[in-house]
Amino acid sequence: MQQQRNLTMLTDLYELTMMYGYYKHGMQDKEVVFDLFFRKSAGQSVYGIAAGLEQIISYIENLHFADEDIEYLRTLNLFDEEFFTLLKGIKFTGEIYAMQEGEIAFPGEPLLRVKAPILQAQLIETAMLNIVNHQTLIATKASRVVYAAQGDGILEFGLRRAQGPDAGIYGARAAIIGGCIGTSNVLTGQMFDISVKGTHAHSWVMTFPTELDSFRAYAKVFPDSCLLLVDTYDTLRSGVPNAITVFNELKENGHKPVGIRLDSGDLAYLSKKARIMLDKAGFEDVKIFASNDLDEHLIWDLKAQGAKIDVWGVGTSLITSRDNPALGGVYKLVSEFDKDGNEIPKIKISENPIKVTTPGYKKVYRLYNKDTNKALADYITLDDEVVDDSKPLTIFDPHATWKRMTLTNYYAKELLHPIFIDGKCVYKKPTLKEIAEYSKQGIASLWNEYKRLSNPHVYKVDLSHKLYNTKQKLLSQINEETSK
Amino acid sequence: MQQQRNLTMLTDLYELTMMYGYYKHGMQDKEVVFDLFFRKSAGQSVYGIAAGLEQIISYIENLHFADEDIEYLRTLNLFDEEFFTLLKGIKFTGEIYAMQEGEIAFPGEPLLRVKAPILQAQLIETAMLNIVNHQTLIATKASRVVYAAQGDGILEFGLRRAQGPDAGIYGARAAIIGGCIGTSNVLTGQMFDISVKGTHAHSWVMTFPTELDSFRAYAKVFPDSCLLLVDTYDTLRSGVPNAITVFNELKENGHKPVGIRLDSGDLAYLSKKARIMLDKAGFEDVKIFASNDLDEHLIWDLKAQGAKIDVWGVGTSLITSRDNPALGGVYKLVSEFDKDGNEIPKIKISENPIKVTTPGYKKVYRLYNKDTNKALADYITLDDEVVDDSKPLTIFDPHATWKRMTLTNYYAKELLHPIFIDGKCVYKKPTLKEIAEYSKQGIASLWNEYKRLSNPHVYKVDLSHKLYNTKQKLLSQINEETSK
Repeated sequence: MQQQRNLTMLTDLYELTMMYGYYKHGMQDKEVVFDLFFRKSAGQSVYGIAAGLEQIISYIENLHFADEDIEYLRTLNLFDEEFFTLLKGIKFTGEIYAMQEGEIAFPGEPLLRVKAPILQAQLIETAMLNIVNHQTLIATKASRVVYAAQGDGILEFGLRRAQGPDAGIYGARAAIIGGCIGTSNVLTGQMFDISVKGTHAHSWVMTFPTELDSFRAYAKVFPDSCLLLVDTYDTLRSGVPNAITVFNELKENGHKPVGIRLDSGDLAYLSKKARIMLDKAGFEDVKIFASNDLDEHLIWDLKAQGAKIDVWGVGTSLITSRDNPALGGVYKLVSEFDKDGNEIPKIKISENPIKVTTPGYKKVYRLYNKDTNKALADYITLDDEVVDDSKPLTIFDPHATWKRMTLTNYYAKELLHPIFIDGKCVYKKPTLKEIAEYSKQGIASLWNEYKRLSNPHVYKVDLSHKLYNTKQKLLSQINEETSK
Repeated sequence: MQQQRNLTMLTDLYELTMMYGYYKHGMQDKEVVFDLFFRKSAGQSVYGIAAGLEQIISYIENLHFADEDIEYLRTLNLFDEEFFTLLKGIKFTGEIYAMQEGEIAFPGEPLLRVKAPILQAQLIETAMLNIVNHQTLIATKASRVVYAAQGDGILEFGLRRAQGPDAGIYGARAAIIGGCIGTSNVLTGQMFDISVKGTHAHSWVMTFPTELDSFRAYAKVFPDSCLLLVDTYDTLRSGVPNAITVFNELKENGHKPVGIRLDSGDLAYLSKKARIMLDKAGFEDVKIFASNDLDEHLIWDLKAQGAKIDVWGVGTSLITSRDNPALGGVYKLVSEFDKDGNEIPKIKISENPIKVTTPGYKKVYRLYNKDTNKALADYITLDDEVVDDSKPLTIFDPHATWKRMTLTNYYAKELLHPIFIDGKCVYKKPTLKEIAEYSKQGIASLWNEYKRLSNPHVYKVDLSHKLYNTKQKLLSQINEETSK
């Protein structure tokens, strides 16, 4: 098992310079609220799958500066000794609400909401974004690949192309959250109790005098889990016939061969030909695995062309989210509290409307149709509002307020759950299997229109009247001030 | 400082199943040679900058299975107890030659060459590829961004968008190897003794009643390193004028302001306007920093449009190598040795000519012009060949053998250096600063034609006659065998 790592120093320097600034101005106890959200999901997806909370919890629980960290910070000649004394004592004492891992999240919705003294809230920004952006990105990508495979199994095979060890380890974890059935990554299997898969490489075949020798050697060692890579020399002239020879030998000895793997060439053509050869030899149950630079679009197209592939191994495109390798999650100040505990909502404006933040200490509801259990829309409110789903609810598009819809026959679910209260973790962490199951339900609650690989339908994320008005009021105030 | 991590289990399962297979067939002591190389560099680059060796060395030195690892492997029900006994005793006893970090590497050249008993050579494949692929990718990307900036400084700012903690930590390390002058990442600064940079975010400005208050508050705490983010409300109407007010106040008190940072809007327009305003106010020395979704192409274009930017902060595009987030480095069997120590070169064929490997236990020379010190071509030979650079050398293109060139007035440098001999590290690890300096020299030895951002000229990587003939012979043999 991996050691607990202290990632307290995994932060941008500006978090520390700002902390020092607040401290020097006596503002270190000011309570603030930050929302962590994305403005746009990964690539062409309209949704994201929240992931990384388990690692956030470890990070927050371990938050502390070690003596060697302070020693290093001293060498920067930016801070004073009193500040180091304060840093040595720092731990998280605030509140965090978050979406559960595996939750479907949409643009603009807080995946995490932090309420804490400003020094702590600022310190944890960078690491939390790093963890959530990465895992949410990969879980989302995985769910698209899984969707493309239309029920076939997807295996995560990308460790060697991942952006460093953690990208491999936690990327594989996120891939399972997104719906993959296993990974080649042994360490991830060990850390999170999930299925690991793998057989042999081309080098195995090349190490024996002939391909047939190498297949026999493999079958001898793994007679009941025999899966042979058939493309080292020539898939249809050599690989598949040799595999069939060995499968027959296994069968004669009472074993059941598992499959063949294709790793090059045209997978539609080769899989159809191989399927015919296997079936003709009486191996209808033998599965065809395929790999070789697959992504969701290629899988979709190969299936449309009738490829006879049962299990897909996806590497680089999944583990790096190759078409869009970063989720642009941000962490924005949305409120502060004065000394008497009164909330002062905050807004960040921008020339770009999508970059204008939604102020206030908020919560998120998902509204479902009572008959279909499909998600209808999400609804963001201020914290003191309650949706009474026994009554009709009229929602409107905050970017085009004349677009309205009145919901009846619906139920509402709150998406943010308490994770830390007064610095204590109050959340019972689910296992990775439970998270994957929860994610599967969430994806099932979305109409396929939202999951289409290209140009999916946009899901409604609306603001309550009260929240909308709070935002408009702050925008007017700022307009007045800057036009003075 | 980060704890030493044991990454032995960071491997694809198939490495373990193959190891088990070799062991069960009594082949565990067979000596083999694997080359680690890429077939194509990252994105549009024709070269790569080798990186990650320091982490490879730590990984190899720490290679061992802990008891809990064995316990986990036992649960997979794939292996026998004798094998676990063998695994418990495993450590690396072989030889590794490698390019130094910061070395310019071209497609097809071994960045690492491993000669070891097959069990060990196979075990280390995945982790080595993971580490080298990631860091080489980012170092290469960084060098392109640095090239685009034509002498301006580049700061690495991407931690929050990196693919997990390691991608942030080692990505920033690789960015320094590629020529960046600093990073925002405090942990990387601490681990590798490099410059860390950062000032404040928009949230700092929003926490004070007015922008001017926030600038004054920042200047009070950091009077001698005052760099102000000026785009929270309105860059030219509010941010820059307020910054100038505060810079004047600093100046009156004997301090020298450092700069302003632009983080949104049109950076060409805003930087030119801001430069005029600053100059007019007598702050010709105050620098303009810019960030906001920059990459090498945008920096090149902004400079072509006369943007007045002195230092560029590059985040997502650099830390993820966004346009091409994976280097496709591979690890291929190129030779094995029989019981008498005779080498048997191995080749992997493919329908795709670029995927055909170059067999044999090899080394790499770089040939330089004696007058200009510019690199002329690389030249791969078998290990027993020696280039005598006092004599003319005729090289030829292995894909078009009629393309020949005779070199005189050149010198040759060997690129592979001994790192591990008989399992012992024999290499003195340079500091990150030394690596960055070495990389800078290497980049300077390349003509700009090879560094062009789009469609750069392809660099010659030729094979010796002897090596070329070895390859052709093996190809003929395989052709004969498969056409039988």
